[in-house]
Amino acid sequence: MLSNRIKELEASPIRRLNPYAAEARKNGKKIYPLNIGQPDIKTPNEYKSAIENYEEKVLSYADSKGIPELINSFVEYYEKHNMNFTKDDIIITNGGSEALLFAFLALFDLGDNVLMPEPYYANYNSFMHIAGVNVTPITTKAEDDFALPSKEDILKLVTPKTKAILITNPSNPTGKVYSKEEIYLIKEVALEKNLYIIADEVYREFVYDGLEFTSFAHIEEINDNVVIIDSISKRYSACGSRIGCIASKNKELMANMLKLAQSRLSVATLEQIGAANLVNVDENYLKEVNDEYRNRRDVLYNSLQKMNGVICNNPQGAFYVIAKLPVKDAEKFAIWLLTDFHINNETVLITPAESFYATEGLGRDEVRISYCTNVEALTKAMYLLEEALKVYPDKK
Amino acid sequence: MLSNRIKELEASPIRRLNPYAAEARKNGKKIYPLNIGQPDIKTPNEYKSAIENYEEKVLSYADSKGIPELINSFVEYYEKHNMNFTKDDIIITNGGSEALLFAFLALFDLGDNVLMPEPYYANYNSFMHIAGVNVTPITTKAEDDFALPSKEDILKLVTPKTKAILITNPSNPTGKVYSKEEIYLIKEVALEKNLYIIADEVYREFVYDGLEFTSFAHIEEINDNVVIIDSISKRYSACGSRIGCIASKNKELMANMLKLAQSRLSVATLEQIGAANLVNVDENYLKEVNDEYRNRRDVLYNSLQKMNGVICNNPQGAFYVIAKLPVKDAEKFAIWLLTDFHINNETVLITPAESFYATEGLGRDEVRISYCTNVEALTKAMYLLEEALKVYPDKK
Repeated sequence: MLSNRIKELEASPIRRLNPYAAEARKNGKKIYPLNIGQPDIKTPNEYKSAIENYEEKVLSYADSKGIPELINSFVEYYEKHNMNFTKDDIIITNGGSEALLFAFLALFDLGDNVLMPEPYYANYNSFMHIAGVNVTPITTKAEDDFALPSKEDILKLVTPKTKAILITNPSNPTGKVYSKEEIYLIKEVALEKNLYIIADEVYREFVYDGLEFTSFAHIEEINDNVVIIDSISKRYSACGSRIGCIASKNKELMANMLKLAQSRLSVATLEQIGAANLVNVDENYLKEVNDEYRNRRDVLYNSLQKMNGVICNNPQGAFYVIAKLPVKDAEKFAIWLLTDFHINNETVLITPAESFYATEGLGRDEVRISYCTNVEALTKAMYLLEEALKVYPDKK
Repeated sequence: MLSNRIKELEASPIRRLNPYAAEARKNGKKIYPLNIGQPDIKTPNEYKSAIENYEEKVLSYADSKGIPELINSFVEYYEKHNMNFTKDDIIITNGGSEALLFAFLALFDLGDNVLMPEPYYANYNSFMHIAGVNVTPITTKAEDDFALPSKEDILKLVTPKTKAILITNPSNPTGKVYSKEEIYLIKEVALEKNLYIIADEVYREFVYDGLEFTSFAHIEEINDNVVIIDSISKRYSACGSRIGCIASKNKELMANMLKLAQSRLSVATLEQIGAANLVNVDENYLKEVNDEYRNRRDVLYNSLQKMNGVICNNPQGAFYVIAKLPVKDAEKFAIWLLTDFHINNETVLITPAESFYATEGLGRDEVRISYCTNVEALTKAMYLLEEALKVYPDKK
């Protein structure tokens, strides 16, 4: 008998359509993948060249904390963002995923509670499930541009079991960039209720329209409360590197977090060598990438706006949008796109958004669309989606 | 307030002497590291060359299960060992460490129980702690060559909470290679009590003196019970790759395990590319490595045998030995070696063995010594240990 824990673990909603996609591909269909956050931008050469130049004869364990060169490169990067971390404040992790798992294990006991805006990144559910943590959602809505409710409304959700607030900024899946006022509102709730703030900022570089990005690490007053979750995956189009980190000025937290890092010995050595050299990437790289995504965002948003019965807001960060479709069940629609629909043997893969909500019933007619693909593909995919909605039988 | 879970997590006994070692190094001491299982053997060139030849422009997420080339290379490797796994029976993991964590999460609910011979690899404690699993030790002793007790004695330890038996074969830290009879004894207990068998076989290639290695995967009758934990770390001297796997013929288990793999998205892509190419390493490599370790084992064992008051058995596998020292507290002795002892500014780093035991009080006068270093260094280290024991003040 397997554990109830594993049986009750929900399969990743982002990946569970993969078998349908595989079957469609086998039948000769071309699929435009708008389902995952896998950028098609070239990874900077600095990554691979550093690995090629690495001459150690034995591929040995790295320090459990991460190699000094990589930690220092994060320190240098943070300095540019006015985030004041030293090398002792950083532990390298297997992507943002492990950073999140470590944070859940370190800050919560079984049955404790995390507060977070919904819709939220669905994989959080897996880490919460593994750590035995419950979520209390702060519901936000497309029609309000996913703005946070008032401080009073948030305070009402805090119970003695609430240990932390998790904020993804910019947000996956909504593309929301929290305003300075909203960040300070969360800060006040955290101080008043003595909560940790887990700030997942992996999309920090993906902010558009001249908006200012405010990190919780900018607020010295809450140094001991804040845990930053980070990753090079999106920033440098290096999802396959699995290099992320946890950063916090809370000494006790980091000392304890190190025990978790030691238990799994180390993060892959060569990937750390490659990632450390990204500090030498030309400064224009991130700017050009940002321009490219803003352009894609425009294409996507303009297309969605024109579709009959589709409702979405204009995302100002990350590379996702939550769109409400004129269908009864978005998961069924997403599957139908793969099994029953095509134009000239082409179709689209999108992610049903229901799993991004903790509140029962919300998001059933919504999808998350990622704009990680180039404009040409995106334009084609939007055409396919529009035509599909015209002929889909199970509409609202 | 941090979680009780993290505060109660024991720091890795293998790594917690590191600060003393760092201090000693800062003071100019040369340290012979006999504490960790970090081989000094050259990693085969095939690893790095495959990475260098990888030409994809985007370093993207790999499949959560692992890349097909790597999975196939494991299948091919297992065939040579008469282990009948197909590609659907394997999930690639972040080293053996993640494979173990996944196994604990998938097979145990909170408060469930695992049976395992002690002394055992101390890091198991971390994964058990994270998964909320308790251990019931099957005590084995150096004076019996760490042989398993009778079937009746083992059956007595099984309770309704017992879900699995974990066997490390060859064993870290004892170097024990389980006989075919012992493997079949465990098989019978598992069948009689309907238990899973978690078989950590990462040292499979390190068996000496012409002994036959028996894998639980050789016994078709228990296909559904067996979960193999594996890793290329030791086999190919590639600890820094963090490439391991879980292999099992149990379809339901593997389908559920995949959900855990999907939650952390994927394992580092380039490391998988490198590891997949190890299937092309010359067949003599593993044989030569085996000869080298057997030689080191002989040097180590012969030296320890000659030391006054030291008791140990002759390990026939892996690259560790458990040695009983004539000291009251082996941890204090290990620290003293770093802080107070040196000959010509040289000293030794060894691992106190108490954390390898679950039974209170056992192992306090024992250490684990790793023979991952070359014969010259090992000879020097043994000389230092012998001299240290002569002058150590807190002897039994």
